[in-house]
Amino acid sequence: MAGNSFGQLFRITTFGESHGEAIGVIIDGCPSMLDVDLDYIQGELDKRKPGQSKITTQRKESDTVRILSGVFEGKTTGTPIMMLIPNEDQRSKDYNHNTDVFRPSHADYTYHTKYGIRDHRGGGRSSARETAARVAAGALAKLLLKTQGIEIVAHVSSVGKIDAPNVEIISADEFIAEREQNIVRCADPATANEMIEFIDSVRKDGDTVGGKVSCHVLNCPVGLGEPVFDKLHADLGKAMLSINAVHGFEFGSGFEGSSMRGSEHNDVFIKDGEKVKTITNYSGGIQGGISNGMPIEFKVAFKPVATIMHNQATINADGDAAEISGKGRHDPCVVPRAVPIVEAMAALVIADHWLRNRNTRLDPHL
Amino acid sequence: MAGNSFGQLFRITTFGESHGEAIGVIIDGCPSMLDVDLDYIQGELDKRKPGQSKITTQRKESDTVRILSGVFEGKTTGTPIMMLIPNEDQRSKDYNHNTDVFRPSHADYTYHTKYGIRDHRGGGRSSARETAARVAAGALAKLLLKTQGIEIVAHVSSVGKIDAPNVEIISADEFIAEREQNIVRCADPATANEMIEFIDSVRKDGDTVGGKVSCHVLNCPVGLGEPVFDKLHADLGKAMLSINAVHGFEFGSGFEGSSMRGSEHNDVFIKDGEKVKTITNYSGGIQGGISNGMPIEFKVAFKPVATIMHNQATINADGDAAEISGKGRHDPCVVPRAVPIVEAMAALVIADHWLRNRNTRLDPHL
Amino acid sequence: MAGNSFGQLFRITTFGESHGEAIGVIIDGCPSMLDVDLDYIQGELDKRKPGQSKITTQRKESDTVRILSGVFEGKTTGTPIMMLIPNEDQRSKDYNHNTDVFRPSHADYTYHTKYGIRDHRGGGRSSARETAARVAAGALAKLLLKTQGIEIVAHVSSVGKIDAPNVEIISADEFIAEREQNIVRCADPATANEMIEFIDSVRKDGDTVGGKVSCHVLNCPVGLGEPVFDKLHADLGKAMLSINAVHGFEFGSGFEGSSMRGSEHNDVFIKDGEKVKTITNYSGGIQGGISNGMPIEFKVAFKPVATIMHNQATINADGDAAEISGKGRHDPCVVPRAVPIVEAMAALVIADHWLRNRNTRLDPHL
Amino acid sequence: MAGNSFGQLFRITTFGESHGEAIGVIIDGCPSMLDVDLDYIQGELDKRKPGQSKITTQRKESDTVRILSGVFEGKTTGTPIMMLIPNEDQRSKDYNHNTDVFRPSHADYTYHTKYGIRDHRGGGRSSARETAARVAAGALAKLLLKTQGIEIVAHVSSVGKIDAPNVEIISADEFIAEREQNIVRCADPATANEMIEFIDSVRKDGDTVGGKVSCHVLNCPVGLGEPVFDKLHADLGKAMLSINAVHGFEFGSGFEGSSMRGSEHNDVFIKDGEKVKTITNYSGGIQGGISNGMPIEFKVAFKPVATIMHNQATINADGDAAEISGKGRHDPCVVPRAVPIVEAMAALVIADHWLRNRNTRLDPHL
Repeated sequence: MAGNSFGQLFRITTFGESHGEAIGVIIDGCPSMLDVDLDYIQGELDKRKPGQSKITTQRKESDTVRILSGVFEGKTTGTPIMMLIPNEDQRSKDYNHNTDVFRPSHADYTYHTKYGIRDHRGGGRSSARETAARVAAGALAKLLLKTQGIEIVAHVSSVGKIDAPNVEIISADEFIAEREQNIVRCADPATANEMIEFIDSVRKDGDTVGGKVSCHVLNCPVGLGEPVFDKLHADLGKAMLSINAVHGFEFGSGFEGSSMRGSEHNDVFIKDGEKVKTITNYSGGIQGGISNGMPIEFKVAFKPVATIMHNQATINADGDAAEISGKGRHDPCVVPRAVPIVEAMAALVIADHWLRNRNTRLDPHL
Repeated sequence: MAGNSFGQLFRITTFGESHGEAIGVIIDGCPSMLDVDLDYIQGELDKRKPGQSKITTQRKESDTVRILSGVFEGKTTGTPIMMLIPNEDQRSKDYNHNTDVFRPSHADYTYHTKYGIRDHRGGGRSSARETAARVAAGALAKLLLKTQGIEIVAHVSSVGKIDAPNVEIISADEFIAEREQNIVRCADPATANEMIEFIDSVRKDGDTVGGKVSCHVLNCPVGLGEPVFDKLHADLGKAMLSINAVHGFEFGSGFEGSSMRGSEHNDVFIKDGEKVKTITNYSGGIQGGISNGMPIEFKVAFKPVATIMHNQATINADGDAAEISGKGRHDPCVVPRAVPIVEAMAALVIADHWLRNRNTRLDPHL
Repeated sequence: MAGNSFGQLFRITTFGESHGEAIGVIIDGCPSMLDVDLDYIQGELDKRKPGQSKITTQRKESDTVRILSGVFEGKTTGTPIMMLIPNEDQRSKDYNHNTDVFRPSHADYTYHTKYGIRDHRGGGRSSARETAARVAAGALAKLLLKTQGIEIVAHVSSVGKIDAPNVEIISADEFIAEREQNIVRCADPATANEMIEFIDSVRKDGDTVGGKVSCHVLNCPVGLGEPVFDKLHADLGKAMLSINAVHGFEFGSGFEGSSMRGSEHNDVFIKDGEKVKTITNYSGGIQGGISNGMPIEFKVAFKPVATIMHNQATINADGDAAEISGKGRHDPCVVPRAVPIVEAMAALVIADHWLRNRNTRLDPHL
Repeated sequence: MAGNSFGQLFRITTFGESHGEAIGVIIDGCPSMLDVDLDYIQGELDKRKPGQSKITTQRKESDTVRILSGVFEGKTTGTPIMMLIPNEDQRSKDYNHNTDVFRPSHADYTYHTKYGIRDHRGGGRSSARETAARVAAGALAKLLLKTQGIEIVAHVSSVGKIDAPNVEIISADEFIAEREQNIVRCADPATANEMIEFIDSVRKDGDTVGGKVSCHVLNCPVGLGEPVFDKLHADLGKAMLSINAVHGFEFGSGFEGSSMRGSEHNDVFIKDGEKVKTITNYSGGIQGGISNGMPIEFKVAFKPVATIMHNQATINADGDAAEISGKGRHDPCVVPRAVPIVEAMAALVIADHWLRNRNTRLDPHL
């Protein structure tokens, strides 16, 4: 059973390889009567597209999305929505030297062994290019959530050992505006400069570096999440871990919480006007796998990009020793372009659970 | 759409509340002709059951499992396997004081708000008691994996700020034997003593503390995992995050890897006899979402148990301020009993993906 | 991937063998706050249970159902509902002579060959005894649908070549009352007598005979059904075909409709007060796979029971010729007991699609 | 939860409207290393395409399929396969008069009421044009099955009241060759002529007529089908009922079997060399929901096409009386073009179950 679909009620299926004709996605289950703002969707793709700045890969793709079905006179019709993104700049010959050689810490060896065949050009299906389809689908999910007032915002909170301080979020729009002021997509300007300089120096070394993205879901209603397995944070975790290069996920108090005591970790409930809140938010907005109305907060760890501009020892398909020299066009640090991907995957999870929650009670409570 | 099933081909559905008549699980998709060792399954449950030692809850449950279907003359028949675990020690009156009060950092408030009704006794469905059903099903998955030589071993690697050193695993059996020498289930004896003392002191304070469990999958063949969404580590992550009290998951280099450079992080391939290996294992045995034949390594962070023996401020169902005093029987630290749960959920994921991988190629390669 | 679950949002998973300890079902996805009338559920089971009359099998089972989870103080809680039906009268030794012999037109040969092992006692998992679990789950679905005014009624419309005339349905309750006046469950009393006599004569011959069940869904709202694959009639068809002994399904004009012309077959829309209706109902209440508000009407064909009281030639597991004499306790005609099964499966489909339809539009319209 | 996917392991998701830019399908789960014969796939589409003959619609579509992903150097790679079929001849203005009027026995009213919006052009998503995507995917499934020697053949067995005699199938290729000799796709030449004349006369009346398609699966191994819900015939039934205009499905003895006695209906097992067979095949090749190695035989009933060239009374979206005159280009009888659709859906079911059966036993037996 293959694994190219995600979500239960708001369900996407992606297709396409890095150097094939096109990539894309079918979204099945988006409710009808939603206004589709194609400019917004394209804007989200633009934040992910290659060639944005000196600290991203120089591959050039306009990543222009077309909607081939499911939308009529600007509205969703309840039928499957097909979004197509043609590939343009497929410098496949850059990859000819990799045909039979397994690049270290890439998916070449595992794909080759699992499937017995692989499209080696640019990593084929294992390329992060596939995430453009996720961003397109996620943008539609965001449009759906915006009708409910739910906003999802992420930014780069760490690059290498450089950590941004916590940024207070007044409004989603302001946070994003601040973040988009700099090419590394960190909402703290001072840290952003430091990060950019560091990435640029790493790039000049022909090396790469990892980082972290922090994400917040604002105005999420109480009740999203389906225990015992499809807890909201479990589905968020799977979504994030399915993004290329992700090696870790934590929400609320996360790994640090494991060294705390219950008496300091417990979030005390209070009534704030009509709204129930907690004084602290170590729970990260989720209790028992269900959103509790507080901001949902989680963090995603990305490993350094495996393609470096150094010579590296490896083996080939025959098992013989080989050497690989880093060619192709790659990112020195993946996190600036990962921000819209994290947001997109979060939006897909929240949209899916928002729909799922509609069926919780006999009397619908939405 | 409710969320009480897990897995695609080796699929489980659990049921039951903490103080209902029974909990249990249906396993659908276990291949036929597997020898069912009921003593082994019961042995796994015994590692999770309450009342094992001074550092676990004093609730008494024998957790005796019965198989009501799907096994004939000691072998699986390919039909659904139903495992039933009756509840015995349901001191429900301990919970009467909680009927209308939301315990801090528990699931009371979210269940109440989502469903409009909840079985408040002992946390009802949100209780970790449900994990007994997972351990029973996971034990069957382990039996299936053992026929392929695949072993899964976990231990407590941190309690509070006490971290165990890395333990080299010679064999699964020896590792487990060492771990079972102490009541905290840490494979490093010196650290284990320190942990036990610490938990005991926390317990005497009426407080609780978090910890981490590290898990290793040994002899996993190359090829398990289904990109792009059902990557092996994404499904492991979801499985772990679905366990009560888990706040974080990382594999391979994990969160630390996000501060490394590509040149130090890349795992170099070598040929070791007939076998392909990597010199380092920052990939944690998974590349591109597919197992690469190296040991699969991941870590799970548990928050401190929310029930403490202190008076705590909270609100009730009417939104009025209330006070809650910790009664009931609970664990000062959940990780010793979480070890078999982590192993069980890992076994369920690996078994599921082992079956899924059977269909990868036209010519079966298993 | 095994196939013991049915439904997407109102999802059941059944387990159990004919002569095992128990059979049962988990229902996952039933909305919370539904009043559970256990007497009603038991009443539905009583209509299916063996030993009801001279024209059913003489196996004695009380088929007493217990609910082990998911219901609290008489209401569903949104958590999985487990229903258990113990087996009582397991005269397994009746089946010892069948251990290695394949009964004609039974599932012995296919189970044996597929799984390599089978519980031969009473047909094991292939026995229609499993349908008791469906009836229990279907009764809960009916209770859910009754809150929406939706009723499902079926009766025996043919036995052998004896066909009942069309019966006008004034109300569901009256129709059922009339049907339950006779042991064959035909709503036309004159035909019922004829059918009973015929079945009794067939029984005395040691033979069996097939028949048909007609089913009607009343007060179904417009909009249920999810094209293009999960059309309402496609899911009804699958549900019916999954019942033991069913060989055919048709809705609306059915097979006869294939010899009609469009000009006579088209159902003309009219407005009847506020309600849209069609003058004829060749569409059977479903157009384009979606309910149109007219009564949903379909028919299910059951083959004659394979177990007869004659000596029959067959082969054994070694492929040698063998003879089989019909022992055990079986029905001369399955349709009287099939009526509640057909209704139950229809209820499961309608409940599932009623929930699914809640997510069709951005603004919920239920 | 929307319903545009079909199959579990060999899983397709279709998209597209009759007069949108394109229709197509993603196939997820096709094993790697399968040779993709694009000419064969196109050939199957050619049998379904409009404008073939005087007895089909005159809409002109070349239905040229392009594969955008998942195939590399002529072989499947195990990644999702995207097939795109652009729409060419979209005479949408033919449908402007239908914008607000509900055509009798079409899906206009139900789509309008369910979704609140619909693409009215040519029926939008409810058009049988969508089945081209199924035929493309089904052709790939057939290629997969051919590697196992499994063949699927169908033909038109009835048009109106004209029934073809049973045709003995010597080989799949010969049967198809015979069938393709005539434009109605009936394998019995004499009956074919009669059918063609009849359809042509109906067409001249501006009317339409229904018919039946019979289908045979040859060389199917024993063991396909997953009781208790995903019985092979239940999934075949759902597949067929999901095709536009289908009102009935039966396999083996079907509806006629319901009037037979067990003593005449039972299929006696015999050993024919090494192979187990049954003397008769009332079981239609499936027992207990699992294939038994005999030819699988089923029949599908199609209602007459709803679009006729007569004036018809109906209502509009406001509920007012309206008249509709049949314009557009439509088929007088759908069954000649339905033959490849029935085969395609059967192939998808058999391919899916062939993969599912691979996981039945601990030791793979394929």
